[in-house]
Amino acid sequence: MSIKRLLIGRPLKSTELGEQKLNKKKALAILSSDALSSVAYGPEQILLVLVTVSTAAFWYSIPIGVGVLVLLTALILSYRQIIFAYPHGGGAYVVSKQNLGIFPGLIAGGSLLVDYILTVAVSVSAGTDAITSAFPSLHEHKVIIAVVFVILLTLLNLRGVTESATILAYPVYLFVVALFLLIAVGLYNIATGHVSPELHAPVGTPVAGMSLFLILRAFASGSSALTGVEAISNAIPNFKEPSPNNAAKTLLAMGTLLAILFSGIVFLAYYYGIAPHPEKTVVSQIAEHTFGRNAVYYFIQGTTALILILAANTGYSAFPLLAVNLANDRFIPRMFTVRGDRLGYSNGIISLGLLSIILIIAFQGQTEQLIPLYAVGVFIPFTLSQTGIMMKWIREKPTGWVPKLIINSIGALISLTVSLVFFLTKFTRVWPVLIFLPLIVWMFYRIKKHYEAVGDQLRLTTCEPAVPITGNVIILPVSGITHVVDHSLNYAKSLSPDQIIAVYIPFEREDIARFEEKWNRWRPDIRLVTLYSPYRSIITPLGKFIDTVHRKASENDYQVTVIIPQFIPKKGWHNFLHNQTSLMLRTYLLYRKDVIITTVPYHLKK
Amino acid sequence: MSIKRLLIGRPLKSTELGEQKLNKKKALAILSSDALSSVAYGPEQILLVLVTVSTAAFWYSIPIGVGVLVLLTALILSYRQIIFAYPHGGGAYVVSKQNLGIFPGLIAGGSLLVDYILTVAVSVSAGTDAITSAFPSLHEHKVIIAVVFVILLTLLNLRGVTESATILAYPVYLFVVALFLLIAVGLYNIATGHVSPELHAPVGTPVAGMSLFLILRAFASGSSALTGVEAISNAIPNFKEPSPNNAAKTLLAMGTLLAILFSGIVFLAYYYGIAPHPEKTVVSQIAEHTFGRNAVYYFIQGTTALILILAANTGYSAFPLLAVNLANDRFIPRMFTVRGDRLGYSNGIISLGLLSIILIIAFQGQTEQLIPLYAVGVFIPFTLSQTGIMMKWIREKPTGWVPKLIINSIGALISLTVSLVFFLTKFTRVWPVLIFLPLIVWMFYRIKKHYEAVGDQLRLTTCEPAVPITGNVIILPVSGITHVVDHSLNYAKSLSPDQIIAVYIPFEREDIARFEEKWNRWRPDIRLVTLYSPYRSIITPLGKFIDTVHRKASENDYQVTVIIPQFIPKKGWHNFLHNQTSLMLRTYLLYRKDVIITTVPYHLKK
Repeated sequence: MSIKRLLIGRPLKSTELGEQKLNKKKALAILSSDALSSVAYGPEQILLVLVTVSTAAFWYSIPIGVGVLVLLTALILSYRQIIFAYPHGGGAYVVSKQNLGIFPGLIAGGSLLVDYILTVAVSVSAGTDAITSAFPSLHEHKVIIAVVFVILLTLLNLRGVTESATILAYPVYLFVVALFLLIAVGLYNIATGHVSPELHAPVGTPVAGMSLFLILRAFASGSSALTGVEAISNAIPNFKEPSPNNAAKTLLAMGTLLAILFSGIVFLAYYYGIAPHPEKTVVSQIAEHTFGRNAVYYFIQGTTALILILAANTGYSAFPLLAVNLANDRFIPRMFTVRGDRLGYSNGIISLGLLSIILIIAFQGQTEQLIPLYAVGVFIPFTLSQTGIMMKWIREKPTGWVPKLIINSIGALISLTVSLVFFLTKFTRVWPVLIFLPLIVWMFYRIKKHYEAVGDQLRLTTCEPAVPITGNVIILPVSGITHVVDHSLNYAKSLSPDQIIAVYIPFEREDIARFEEKWNRWRPDIRLVTLYSPYRSIITPLGKFIDTVHRKASENDYQVTVIIPQFIPKKGWHNFLHNQTSLMLRTYLLYRKDVIITTVPYHLKK
Repeated sequence: MSIKRLLIGRPLKSTELGEQKLNKKKALAILSSDALSSVAYGPEQILLVLVTVSTAAFWYSIPIGVGVLVLLTALILSYRQIIFAYPHGGGAYVVSKQNLGIFPGLIAGGSLLVDYILTVAVSVSAGTDAITSAFPSLHEHKVIIAVVFVILLTLLNLRGVTESATILAYPVYLFVVALFLLIAVGLYNIATGHVSPELHAPVGTPVAGMSLFLILRAFASGSSALTGVEAISNAIPNFKEPSPNNAAKTLLAMGTLLAILFSGIVFLAYYYGIAPHPEKTVVSQIAEHTFGRNAVYYFIQGTTALILILAANTGYSAFPLLAVNLANDRFIPRMFTVRGDRLGYSNGIISLGLLSIILIIAFQGQTEQLIPLYAVGVFIPFTLSQTGIMMKWIREKPTGWVPKLIINSIGALISLTVSLVFFLTKFTRVWPVLIFLPLIVWMFYRIKKHYEAVGDQLRLTTCEPAVPITGNVIILPVSGITHVVDHSLNYAKSLSPDQIIAVYIPFEREDIARFEEKWNRWRPDIRLVTLYSPYRSIITPLGKFIDTVHRKASENDYQVTVIIPQFIPKKGWHNFLHNQTSLMLRTYLLYRKDVIITTVPYHLKK
């Protein structure tokens, strides 16, 4: 317990919740790390596609980058509208559910739920890559490093939102500063002619083997840099009042930063003629090219690693909130709605941590392979929520709805296109979506159905009244004449039931008469039933006997109670020294028979 | 359940026990496999020591072999006397305990308990070696093969003694036939001059670097061929009547067979000039030398493998019986005294199987390293039980006790010498005995102490009478107004306690008044206590409340019962969908508070 306190801090009262709200600066840090960090791998993804043709094709990254910027603008404008339309949090699940129906809502929700797990796994692995790029000797410990980071993030989030935001703010701003510095110095070097213009092929150079398919594929890959832009619109309730305005401003700031960083990296990579390298990231190569392997290089690598790892934190902000929404609608277990000691939704936080650790271990930290899956899992809910908002405008027709509709229609169309391009051009990587998404949605419905069934059975108004209880029969299994039996019998008598039956189950025929005689001398007033068990089983004969008693009792509306005495040893290991019959018996009766089970503990004193 | 039936057969009644007794032929098979199989590795152990000097030293195996035969004779004669002195089973534990005291008894018992686990691990690994000598491609699957054999043996033994004896009889006799054939043909070849006498150095050739230390070491190693001779004296109750006579005859037969096989192998190995080889056992080399790699060779390898694996069965016969003796004396958990469905002591059988699998996996099947440890673990109880019998003769002085005393004194002395030689010459291999033996004996005493303490507390005659119960207070935690609560309340009322207190634990302050009002409209007759829990914990406030109630109740000899309603979902996976509060609450109350806990199951119908 004290370890828990040390790790996550003292428990907070429910009334302390208000203090945990975010101001704009902190919100930008906590909610943008995912989007901003994507520039560390987005441009690289474009080059990875182009390099399959030839390095001469690298100039295509410039028009493709422009395409990504157009997409970014459309998404930012669309999400700005969602913020004002859903000031209480416009996650894709809520927006799709309200405007398109439950099924599209669940598709969006299921897609995002998995996506946040991928966010954590992919971001932390990429961050670990940045570290091992700088320190190659750590390469073999990649998986362990990544897992440790996930554990640290989980603990941070169990501590609570504000505290993790404070810790998060610095690295995000440091990363922005580092990349601005990199881009500025890089552009300055180019402007002053320190970089040979022969490193790259000029834009427009004809490239043999280039196809529309590859361009689309590179575009889809590049748009993975946009994952995370939805985070702000999901988290509006975490902002200080006026939440929607603050959120909208934060969104614009993030969009601007993202556009600048993305363009800068794409341009520098193109101008320096950088090719993707299995052991050095593109950003790391640009930094080496610009500064050499000096302190500034390590600063850039360090902040990149940090922001990538902290990008995972977006998953930690979003997953538990989405889980609460789904759990309130009874599509996932209700435990996700319970706030922990520090007011965070601990079950969501812990589940997210565990699942991403499993992913990291399963893929041995090679989560680059998951990036396309992750990106498509973002663009499906993007499409659904934009379409949802379109429907809202068409249905409600508020003042000035036509331009709003146009903006969201463009957003929806582009998102849909990107999703389709992923399926068309990267099917080998994204097919799992077609399996797990239906599975998850089916699971949602199963869970919902169960909760509804339970609700029906529990509701007092809709159900038949409880069966009346006119009397009680108590069954007490005894293994000898001891204090434990004495105590349990006393208790049974004090409840003044209509009948008490002591049951003795000997394994040897000789024990029957011997025990009956002993019993009748000790407690002649209590009826003893002896069930000889030649097969040395206690549960089978007792179960049969209980069935008989229960049948007769039910006829008279009598309730059957089985009293099970249980030793409570002073030390844990002592449990090994006692037959676990009580436990087995209780489990069996609880699940198989309709009887009430009373455990009379007998606390051993030494 | 039906899988269990398929694997181990239908359950047997306790009265069917008599049918499971052994006749001499079966007993020889079941109880000698350990001792006879030792000739497959005993001679090799001698050569492994001698080869450290030079191959010229191999002639020493002849006098050392003679020494082992003398030791064998002494042991057989000593054990013959033990059989008649302890016709109900004279395991080293019983004999040492009765004649020397509890502490020496526990040393012998603990030593043997560990030794039987080593028997299984070492024999099965050696058998697997014999198989992989013949089929080298299986070498890499050694551990899995060995583990599968242990599982099969465990199942056989769970089926019961007689059935495993029937299966065991064939391989043991086949092995004896195979080795007789090998020795006969080998001797015939030598006699007819088909074997070059230059393969070996003549007996008496001076060898540089030979020392008494090495001779003793080789002797101790060779005496590992004698492990298992005690098995018959431990298992007398398993023999048909007259058990002691049958057992004594079986013992003599076994001793004779063992002497012939051991001498034959040692002599052939010497005459052929065979040197130990890491991938081919000595017996395998002799067989190859005599027959070539033909069908007879494979027959010998096959029966060797089989008998080695079945030698492990000696462990399965002896371990559970020893465990019963120790458990009856309360030195190990009582569950070892319970007969399973097939009348075997299943807990002992299963524990033995599990522990030896752990050893095999931990040593990756390289259990040759364990042979010295195993041998010393046999000779310590040998020494103790012979000394025990000596004491018996001295104390009781039956007719003709002097020659008996002399025989057992020689046995004790030789066993003691062998034990000491092991410590002197193989300390690096046998030191673990000095750690685990004291640990085990300490554990025996701890367990005994606990059982005695429990016995004292339970005994009606020695303890204070049970506290009288003059009335009942029932506490019922409620989470809402549902059928479950209704049903539990009805039950509580039917017990007509002196007081029923419903407890509601809201996490939000607003809930207090709302729920109290609702309750008072629904059940104004039942007292409701509301415990506001700002830290969202159910257990802490409820625990405190129960303490308060309990304190007041105890003053008036009232008993406190907590009624916990529990959902029983129709399907196992549904458990995930319900907060496990009931379970956590019950565990907490059971272990931490002195209250009775009644579980009212609510079986969900869908």
